Amino acid sequence: MPDQVLDDISHRRYNPLTGSWLLVSPHRTKRPWQGQQEAPLKNVLPEYDPKCYLCPGNQRAQGDSNPLYENTFTFVNDYSAVKEQQQEYNPEIKRDDIAALLLQAQPVTGRCYVLTFSPKHDITLADMAASDILPVIQTWTRIYASHLSATHPLRAQADKTLSSIPANQDGEVDRPKNQLRYMQIFENKGAAMGCSNPHPHCQIWTTSTLPEEPGKELVQMAKYLSDNGRHLLADYVRLEVEKQERVVWQNDTFVVVCPWWAVWPFEVIIIAKRHVRALVDLTDEEQLHFAEAVQEVTRRYDNLFETSFPYSSGIHQAPLDCTEEEAETSWFHMHFYPPLLRSATVRKFLVGYELMAEPQRDITPEQAAARLRSCGGKLYRKLLK
Amino acid sequence: MPDQVLDDISHRRYNPLTGSWLLVSPHRTKRPWQGQQEAPLKNVLPEYDPKCYLCPGNQRAQGDSNPLYENTFTFVNDYSAVKEQQQEYNPEIKRDDIAALLLQAQPVTGRCYVLTFSPKHDITLADMAASDILPVIQTWTRIYASHLSATHPLRAQADKTLSSIPANQDGEVDRPKNQLRYMQIFENKGAAMGCSNPHPHCQIWTTSTLPEEPGKELVQMAKYLSDNGRHLLADYVRLEVEKQERVVWQNDTFVVVCPWWAVWPFEVIIIAKRHVRALVDLTDEEQLHFAEAVQEVTRRYDNLFETSFPYSSGIHQAPLDCTEEEAETSWFHMHFYPPLLRSATVRKFLVGYELMAEPQRDITPEQAAARLRSCGGKLYRKLLK
Ligand SMILES: O=P(O)(O)O[C@H]1O[C@H](CO)[C@@H](O)[C@H](O)[C@H]1O
Ligand SMILES: O=P(O)(O)O[C@H]1O[C@H](CO)[C@@H](O)[C@H](O)[C@H]1O
Repeated sequence: MPDQVLDDISHRRYNPLTGSWLLVSPHRTKRPWQGQQEAPLKNVLPEYDPKCYLCPGNQRAQGDSNPLYENTFTFVNDYSAVKEQQQEYNPEIKRDDIAALLLQAQPVTGRCYVLTFSPKHDITLADMAASDILPVIQTWTRIYASHLSATHPLRAQADKTLSSIPANQDGEVDRPKNQLRYMQIFENKGAAMGCSNPHPHCQIWTTSTLPEEPGKELVQMAKYLSDNGRHLLADYVRLEVEKQERVVWQNDTFVVVCPWWAVWPFEVIIIAKRHVRALVDLTDEEQLHFAEAVQEVTRRYDNLFETSFPYSSGIHQAPLDCTEEEAETSWFHMHFYPPLLRSATVRKFLVGYELMAEPQRDITPEQAAARLRSCGGKLYRKLLK
Repeated sequence: MPDQVLDDISHRRYNPLTGSWLLVSPHRTKRPWQGQQEAPLKNVLPEYDPKCYLCPGNQRAQGDSNPLYENTFTFVNDYSAVKEQQQEYNPEIKRDDIAALLLQAQPVTGRCYVLTFSPKHDITLADMAASDILPVIQTWTRIYASHLSATHPLRAQADKTLSSIPANQDGEVDRPKNQLRYMQIFENKGAAMGCSNPHPHCQIWTTSTLPEEPGKELVQMAKYLSDNGRHLLADYVRLEVEKQERVVWQNDTFVVVCPWWAVWPFEVIIIAKRHVRALVDLTDEEQLHFAEAVQEVTRRYDNLFETSFPYSSGIHQAPLDCTEEEAETSWFHMHFYPPLLRSATVRKFLVGYELMAEPQRDITPEQAAARLRSCGGKLYRKLLK
């Protein structure tokens, strides 16, 4: 590695996907930790919990009952952050000049889904075989496809996919009346990442606006494409596969790397090797390859500190409503942001300096990748049955 | 209030200081919470803890002993994130084209201080009278002044201040050999914000680079100034003082508001009313006014849920090494980012959607301001000793 010196010195690294810098202080892991300890999941969970609002057959907060679903189940969040219908808001009319500059607001509508990964209350993605994760990926794909605009550049592709994917139990996944702009699929796993129910599930928030992070990435990727005539993530995948310094795992379709610009201690990104613009671009075989990648990441995470590893993850892909150019610029990838740093109970806090000045990390992404490479193999615990 | 509707509907608000948007979902507080509970500080702390590395007279990690200091004490962090001396790094020489674009790094040097607020182990800023907080502000001012570049536009101002401020116990606050670019003063308070020692203290990280957040703010403020011929925060203070919708408290020199664009549930910002570029611009009287503002914020925070309220706070001001224009653009302010949302034990998690898509908040800043306005008065607990 030409830049061995980066293992020892404080330096900044540039995130070309967001256009921002972070601080890396490799020697800092030596400091003792006397602060908060994370509570590892203590009780063994039951396979079915009569009080869980996600288990099959149970009643939810607002009275609806879950079906006796067999793999995934999707429904509209009973406490959605955005809704399809709300009062109108037209700020322009009543605003003086300075307020129009400094008190800017815009209404947001949309729909939020909850999607369970399995009827079993006591498992996680790490416990599931790739073939069990496949229905999750198919459900993501079908929901994404069914929310694309009528004139979307990927519309034909989406219709083909829709007809080939088996329907799981999806509560209310009809197309919303008003076309939405972006679909954010994400999972909060573990109490440390704000998850309030251990039943394996993710969320899908679909909004009339393009959120900040995918928005920034699209701008950066478009700029790179127009400057260099090549895709940013195509170049990045090629570079990483060639250098093998930050690669954790790969198959024919995806590579898992601790990105050069990782902020979270064991942050990884799953990137498509070919130009996949969105879930609907994946072939049947590639869907399985994606399931394998998700399996590898989550199992290695759990093996690392022999614990149910907390993280937030999220997929970035083409907007639901977009131009030909935006679709072409999009490059399918999935981020994992896990907080644990040293053990099952000691996490990294992204707080004072990180919030006020700039993100700071302690181990290098190269060190993190080496650790994750070496903890493949079977899940450290028996499959919870 | 003309925009009452914003109390009910999901909307985005714009942060003109950073140029980014956040999602506000006022109805979302109704959802039940079954997730992680924060552990409130259980044990009553002793006034002096023989095992604390910040208490007067005690020994620190690398062998140094603290003096028997009387108000503040400053020393170089034994586990600094950046250091003054390190190996050289010259990436340019050995880089091919794509790596130069996608694997960018730059070395960072600097110095990190720890600064205790009081010799007493068991108090916090909320327990201290404004007159006891004044020495903290004077120490911040002296450290800032002593790190300014020789040709800094505020140099004369700094020298005047240095001669008028009484010296507290400052371990190693001599001027670093190499001029540094920015000084970030910040406090992590409480275990929930990654603080590993309850002894009241803050940190000061001083770097050869301008970090992301103050950098973004300077760009945004410069743009506003050139577009409008007025300072962004001057206009904002005027607007808020006039509207009185988000103001929590004010005196002659400072206003405390829950900003229009607040992300954290009870986020506030202390903003100078006149054009203060940095700590050294404050007169003796204004320093006391600043101490009062810090006291008001921290006491109201503790009163809100009758707990020792966790937060991260930080000061943004003119860089240590800057042009006349950058100094003129700077407008002194202090951010407070507190995580608690509903009670002493239920916090807001900024996780999946927030990290992958866009920050999301549940109560409006107007609602937060109303709550903070109404919990002034004496600290809910007796002054500890
Ligand atoms: O320096 P401390 O207090 O040990 O560490 C704390 O503050 C730092 C600066 O915000 C963070 O990087 C650490 O994650 C946090 O635990
Ligand atoms: O929707 P949930 O799981 O109740 O809530 C969790 O995820 C949301 C989206 O990241 C966050 O806004 C919440 O703070 C978090 O607790």
